[in-house]
Amino acid sequence: MARQKGIGTRRAAGNGGETRLSRAAVGRFSLYLRHLEPFEREGVDTVSSRRLAQELGLTDAQVRKDIAFLGSLGHRGVGYPTRDLIAALRRRLGIDRQWNVAVAGVGNLARALLRYRGFKQQGFRIVALFDADPAQIGRRVEGLEVHAPDALGRIIGQSGAELALLTVPADAAQGVADGLVAAGIRGILNFAPVVLRLPKHISLVAVDLAIQLEQLAFLVDRQGKG
Amino acid sequence: MARQKGIGTRRAAGNGGETRLSRAAVGRFSLYLRHLEPFEREGVDTVSSRRLAQELGLTDAQVRKDIAFLGSLGHRGVGYPTRDLIAALRRRLGIDRQWNVAVAGVGNLARALLRYRGFKQQGFRIVALFDADPAQIGRRVEGLEVHAPDALGRIIGQSGAELALLTVPADAAQGVADGLVAAGIRGILNFAPVVLRLPKHISLVAVDLAIQLEQLAFLVDRQGKG
Repeated sequence: MARQKGIGTRRAAGNGGETRLSRAAVGRFSLYLRHLEPFEREGVDTVSSRRLAQELGLTDAQVRKDIAFLGSLGHRGVGYPTRDLIAALRRRLGIDRQWNVAVAGVGNLARALLRYRGFKQQGFRIVALFDADPAQIGRRVEGLEVHAPDALGRIIGQSGAELALLTVPADAAQGVADGLVAAGIRGILNFAPVVLRLPKHISLVAVDLAIQLEQLAFLVDRQGKG
Repeated sequence: MARQKGIGTRRAAGNGGETRLSRAAVGRFSLYLRHLEPFEREGVDTVSSRRLAQELGLTDAQVRKDIAFLGSLGHRGVGYPTRDLIAALRRRLGIDRQWNVAVAGVGNLARALLRYRGFKQQGFRIVALFDADPAQIGRRVEGLEVHAPDALGRIIGQSGAELALLTVPADAAQGVADGLVAAGIRGILNFAPVVLRLPKHISLVAVDLAIQLEQLAFLVDRQGKG
């Protein structure tokens, strides 16, 4: 059973020991990457842990610890080379290559995601669309044809999609997810508000938008009481 | 400066000590809640930590520790009373009341969010819409009128909105966020792929969809190498 929330995994650290790379750390790596990319475009050659910490609201110690986890980056008190740091982050995140992505369920959310430039910038290319609605099948959305569910096996194979965005209604989510897995998808980003049950070898990240709003309400509630 | 990713905060635990409630714990509370609500509807009076652990892919110890954090729930070896557990989770998450929510930027993403039943089920009511596009202003979307940015102060006040969903393009996000704060919003759920700078008393949760996809790619990459 793939764990809905757990992202922690074991991997060898630079010192030869085993270190757990937490979901939070993976999230920070993405955040560093997002923050560093404009620096490279603007020709900022080096960046200090202190600057990253200040600008991202983290502690200096946390940033240094995270960067140490990426391996030796030739830090000699003058900051880290921006380009090397970006490359190391992309390598560690597994996005030093292109990922092809399928989208199951072509509603408003999928249309918003199709226009979202951030995916392409990070090497994610949406290559296939699926929808069960006969009125959608055969139409083109953002240049891609919408296919019927019974074409999943064929189209996923042809398109080379390894990841899928699941943007179908809650009651259809498990069935469509099973179909994606049968068609060869290796990981699912689930937007449907249900807990999916998938084979162990399939990776799963859940985006529950109500949970994110609950986290915000929790913070505001605390702020009011604190 | 509100921290973009950090959600951890200090609060008194049941034993009178100080315990840090992590972002991960808050996320699990939401997950328990989501999982328990159908039990209540189906008349399941009690639920064991073991059942919750198995069905959510967590350890029994983790579930028991989380529930202990909610205070005494009369667990006597027969499981926790479902209704009490739900009430305690909602209270701890600060959603034992209704939250009014504004939406800034009425594109495809906002339209998907407006139709998302999960918000209303958890006590979040979308009460006001804003967009800078003159073609949108004055139109009704899902029964709500779209207002111009210059109406922010007046409409936020009238609607009682405390939280906002920020679904504008990246380059407009900081300006619109500043306007929401000036209008009295206390917390922002930011969907724009930028790091916002907000006053310390404003709560902020960032939904970076590319980061979620990067986390998925990381997991799939690990799975392939593991």
